[in-house]
Amino acid sequence: MIRAGIIGATGYAGAELVRILAGHPGVELTAVTSRRYAGKPFGEVFPAMAGVVDLVCEELDIAGLCGRTDVVFLALPHKIPMALVPEIAGLGKKVVDLSADFRFSDIGLYEQHYQAHTAKELNKDAVYGLCEIYREKIRKAVIIGNPGCYPTSILLPLIPLLKKGLINPDTIISDSKSGVSGAGRSVSLTTHFCEVNESYRAYKIAAHRHNPEINEVLTREAGSPVHITFVPHLVPMTRGMLTTTYASLNKDAKETDIRNCIADYYAGRYFVRMRPDENPPDTLHVRGTNFCDIGVRIDRHNNRLILISAIDNLVKGAAGQAVQNMNIMYGLDEAAGLDIVPCPV
Amino acid sequence: MIRAGIIGATGYAGAELVRILAGHPGVELTAVTSRRYAGKPFGEVFPAMAGVVDLVCEELDIAGLCGRTDVVFLALPHKIPMALVPEIAGLGKKVVDLSADFRFSDIGLYEQHYQAHTAKELNKDAVYGLCEIYREKIRKAVIIGNPGCYPTSILLPLIPLLKKGLINPDTIISDSKSGVSGAGRSVSLTTHFCEVNESYRAYKIAAHRHNPEINEVLTREAGSPVHITFVPHLVPMTRGMLTTTYASLNKDAKETDIRNCIADYYAGRYFVRMRPDENPPDTLHVRGTNFCDIGVRIDRHNNRLILISAIDNLVKGAAGQAVQNMNIMYGLDEAAGLDIVPCPV
Amino acid sequence: MIRAGIIGATGYAGAELVRILAGHPGVELTAVTSRRYAGKPFGEVFPAMAGVVDLVCEELDIAGLCGRTDVVFLALPHKIPMALVPEIAGLGKKVVDLSADFRFSDIGLYEQHYQAHTAKELNKDAVYGLCEIYREKIRKAVIIGNPGCYPTSILLPLIPLLKKGLINPDTIISDSKSGVSGAGRSVSLTTHFCEVNESYRAYKIAAHRHNPEINEVLTREAGSPVHITFVPHLVPMTRGMLTTTYASLNKDAKETDIRNCIADYYAGRYFVRMRPDENPPDTLHVRGTNFCDIGVRIDRHNNRLILISAIDNLVKGAAGQAVQNMNIMYGLDEAAGLDIVPCPV
Amino acid sequence: MIRAGIIGATGYAGAELVRILAGHPGVELTAVTSRRYAGKPFGEVFPAMAGVVDLVCEELDIAGLCGRTDVVFLALPHKIPMALVPEIAGLGKKVVDLSADFRFSDIGLYEQHYQAHTAKELNKDAVYGLCEIYREKIRKAVIIGNPGCYPTSILLPLIPLLKKGLINPDTIISDSKSGVSGAGRSVSLTTHFCEVNESYRAYKIAAHRHNPEINEVLTREAGSPVHITFVPHLVPMTRGMLTTTYASLNKDAKETDIRNCIADYYAGRYFVRMRPDENPPDTLHVRGTNFCDIGVRIDRHNNRLILISAIDNLVKGAAGQAVQNMNIMYGLDEAAGLDIVPCPV
Repeated sequence: MIRAGIIGATGYAGAELVRILAGHPGVELTAVTSRRYAGKPFGEVFPAMAGVVDLVCEELDIAGLCGRTDVVFLALPHKIPMALVPEIAGLGKKVVDLSADFRFSDIGLYEQHYQAHTAKELNKDAVYGLCEIYREKIRKAVIIGNPGCYPTSILLPLIPLLKKGLINPDTIISDSKSGVSGAGRSVSLTTHFCEVNESYRAYKIAAHRHNPEINEVLTREAGSPVHITFVPHLVPMTRGMLTTTYASLNKDAKETDIRNCIADYYAGRYFVRMRPDENPPDTLHVRGTNFCDIGVRIDRHNNRLILISAIDNLVKGAAGQAVQNMNIMYGLDEAAGLDIVPCPV
Repeated sequence: MIRAGIIGATGYAGAELVRILAGHPGVELTAVTSRRYAGKPFGEVFPAMAGVVDLVCEELDIAGLCGRTDVVFLALPHKIPMALVPEIAGLGKKVVDLSADFRFSDIGLYEQHYQAHTAKELNKDAVYGLCEIYREKIRKAVIIGNPGCYPTSILLPLIPLLKKGLINPDTIISDSKSGVSGAGRSVSLTTHFCEVNESYRAYKIAAHRHNPEINEVLTREAGSPVHITFVPHLVPMTRGMLTTTYASLNKDAKETDIRNCIADYYAGRYFVRMRPDENPPDTLHVRGTNFCDIGVRIDRHNNRLILISAIDNLVKGAAGQAVQNMNIMYGLDEAAGLDIVPCPV
Repeated sequence: MIRAGIIGATGYAGAELVRILAGHPGVELTAVTSRRYAGKPFGEVFPAMAGVVDLVCEELDIAGLCGRTDVVFLALPHKIPMALVPEIAGLGKKVVDLSADFRFSDIGLYEQHYQAHTAKELNKDAVYGLCEIYREKIRKAVIIGNPGCYPTSILLPLIPLLKKGLINPDTIISDSKSGVSGAGRSVSLTTHFCEVNESYRAYKIAAHRHNPEINEVLTREAGSPVHITFVPHLVPMTRGMLTTTYASLNKDAKETDIRNCIADYYAGRYFVRMRPDENPPDTLHVRGTNFCDIGVRIDRHNNRLILISAIDNLVKGAAGQAVQNMNIMYGLDEAAGLDIVPCPV
Repeated sequence: MIRAGIIGATGYAGAELVRILAGHPGVELTAVTSRRYAGKPFGEVFPAMAGVVDLVCEELDIAGLCGRTDVVFLALPHKIPMALVPEIAGLGKKVVDLSADFRFSDIGLYEQHYQAHTAKELNKDAVYGLCEIYREKIRKAVIIGNPGCYPTSILLPLIPLLKKGLINPDTIISDSKSGVSGAGRSVSLTTHFCEVNESYRAYKIAAHRHNPEINEVLTREAGSPVHITFVPHLVPMTRGMLTTTYASLNKDAKETDIRNCIADYYAGRYFVRMRPDENPPDTLHVRGTNFCDIGVRIDRHNNRLILISAIDNLVKGAAGQAVQNMNIMYGLDEAAGLDIVPCPV
């Protein structure tokens, strides 16, 4: 059994890690920390877990925690993880960090959009944990920068097409929509029920910090600079993320060509599902799961490709992919603990 | 492996059976039928299941189905099951029927509220599958009448108190609230999104067919006639059921007495969770699970007890309890396949 | 034109007052105050109002505000109004206070459930503004204690029946359900979208401060002590409140007797609508309106009455009734500014 | 008083017409028809209107209806209106048709996307009722083809920019999102609460019949062929439509240039509101109103414009604009009956 600990277990991503790891057949969850709820049983903070998860939230004590864990998940706001990871890694533990701190290869890009990086040496060895793309690197990684939710939904359908040169990188627009849990568990007027219900709005228009993260990965995979237009929106639902991506086709590719390109690229990868025209991706279809559902249409008049991708922002967009990364690092079946049967509704 | 079949697998209760049985470690799901979707892969009808459940919906052919199954679940409108169960039982299969057809001991009561019963002989041997109450009978049963969702939420907190004579049976009022999935997957104005959103309403006020079902069980357990007042309401959410039950206390019992009476009765039963005052039952806490959460308060001025019970109407209120019944019939751990870790939100 | 000012205009009840008064044909809205948003245009705080309401939020300056107003509405947390009202009333202005500070006749009851009252002399002359019951007193009032939302929904159907002795006051139970806007605009985990969505729960069970308010009015109207059991619940919707009230019938009254008793009592009162059995009250039917819809059923077996009443918690339960009070005080048509045509959905 | 009749008054657009016209100071609503509910009081079909709207739904009898009306609104599925309008117009009545039947100048385009047109002569004189663009023509019109909801949200922000040549017409992409009421009141699995809640999905991807309608108007206004990429999505909310439109800038225009171009074009037009960056358009801000809120951002790296526009699909996207058209036809204030103060939430 792999002994796992979670730092920051009482935010939504952290609690989702608890859900998945508590049901993982190869993992023993040995420690959950929470600054706010230290001393409280986890099942008191999330009563859904009462009687299911027996852990008590702890104050963070890295040495103590590392003595009881093999792998440490960090589900904290960016900036904090890079202060903690050096000690954790120094104690020989594997790390999956859900913040942005270890996602960037170009540390200058990180510093431009976030703040000064204080663990640059470690960052060099960190691997961007987009599992379907970087599996080989992840196998050998010690520190994983777990991808953002928006980047995951955008990168998976695009990368195979960019690598094959099927689309024009200068024309990529991603119109993304997220459920409210993506905004975290902190209270704010933005997440107040009455301000979300019957509301649909864009935010951080062409100014979201996931944009440089997306650009860096696409640029690396395309082999030339890519800078997409990215607009996130908030949808009145708890979970789910759907991205509609537009791009001009380089050639007269047919829908089946595009579909096959993506399907071939992800052949044998359990968590990518190609959806047929009559059943396009829907956040309800991936709710609570680690799937990324992908749909393809072409606006023939404009020779413009339309990609639809749906994930659960808390699972494939956060905790699920984090566990998938752990599975790969430990040579387990990629789907271990993640092969949860989806609810019909 | 127990081979299970589901007749009527594409309604919400049927599809929830698919979800649970597909993830059950001791079960092989061998057949799913659907009149409407016969010939279609189940994962096309419920795209959430694409790549997870490989079965194709079949036309109902009882002999064929029974050749491939040990236990048959029926998730159909009442009246149809009693026409099918004789043949299924005649072929030596165990039956869990989710309709009302085999729930009543007093066939006259059934006939008064539903229609003429056409399988009275079989009904005699059928067991009312309220697992925490009738486990011993369920062990030996061949036909289970799986309880209604409202009855389950109402009976579990009340029975221990009635058996101990702690409350006055003439004063019981259950004010119940259900999510929309309880109304099934059939389309109707009542379940149209725009007519449900921002709507809260009562329906079948003191006239719901679950009322006689509740009365019969309470009467049996109390040992004297019980006829509660029951008012169901519809809540703008997909899943979940919460019942607030009111009853006059027979004695000057304290909250702890009531709480202990219920807790002792269900000691060791995984799926009943007593909730503390500061964390009363909430449908969100039981969503997707087989738990029944129970809370207790006393209005001391009126010496009136207030019981709160929450279940997921599709799980403990339907498919989950059905599988729990199967587990008991086969001597498995009661929680096999049902120990799904709940989502935090 | 009556010149009106609102103190605390940027909470939900205050903003709803702005909505109604801005469309009132006999009112000029001359001042809105907000501690938090002072200096900001109201249309910036509530962008829905941009281009419609031109006022700028002010710091509270009672003398200044009273110089520009004839009537002052206070939409503030209790305790603050009783510190402000003496000065406002001293300047000869009429007052409608939406808090609990001037709702109680028995100041001891207020002090037991809230805190020491600091304006007892004024409280003596304040009138409880339940418009359909106390119209004559309201006509002559200078200070109105505007009723709570739960009390409004509970009192209106009950009072005619209690006055006629049709029900047993010792058996009254009100099971109430409120939309989330009732919890106000302050941020909290309780109103976080993800904690409300798919959630239904009771809170302050038999311990809500509206309970003594209800009891005092019922006791006064019944002429003997009444202490009801009251349990509020939170529903995942923005607006709306529905109460299901249970009480034993004193006589063998028929549904039509009960219905007629209530209908006769409110004959000619625009805002009370009796609903037929086939169309029971629904929060969606009163959304955005000042109506109180009432339905009646009898559980004949238990000779128990079931009353259903629906209001919009922000309108008839707060701002709408406040304006109705103003209309009565000024001798206007009771429905002036409140005869807004409801949306179909 | 203008006497108005509504044919098809019990769908959502028709009922919304009732709401608006019943509150219109210059209109007497004299007839509402409904095939399904003929003979029923309108307030029984929509209980929200009980006591407010006194009309009884009628069977359609054109001659009878026209005898009591000056203007007739048709809120019916396309194909039916073109069979009725000739008789209505022949009786000298003004017509506002909410279907697609009289929206197209190029009848061939209509026939390609809908069916054979059976009232071509009348179509020649019909005016496309996009009020802010075609006011002068509307003044003199007898038959109005009331614009679709998606076209309204897309055309308003784009037309001023296209007329000024500020954007490249070949690059226009509109990613639109609609509340569920846009799908009408007919029951279907697509609008079942449980299939919509927690669901976000695209539909009719680059294949929606509003696409040719949009193209025709943009082509006319731009003076050269425009064919946009259009993808509609369904949002789990009742009302509201938000479109995010992307287009490459022709010049190095600044955000203020774009904003000013649109603002100047709509100067003095009440229903277009330019929103500042810190308060981008939100469906909640326009709920129940006839406003179209517009926001502007530029992705400077790609020199790509991002336009956000929000309307209420049932108001500015249907019934509200229809009444605005009537107002213009009769020389009333454009906002008569439509200057409803918006709800804060």
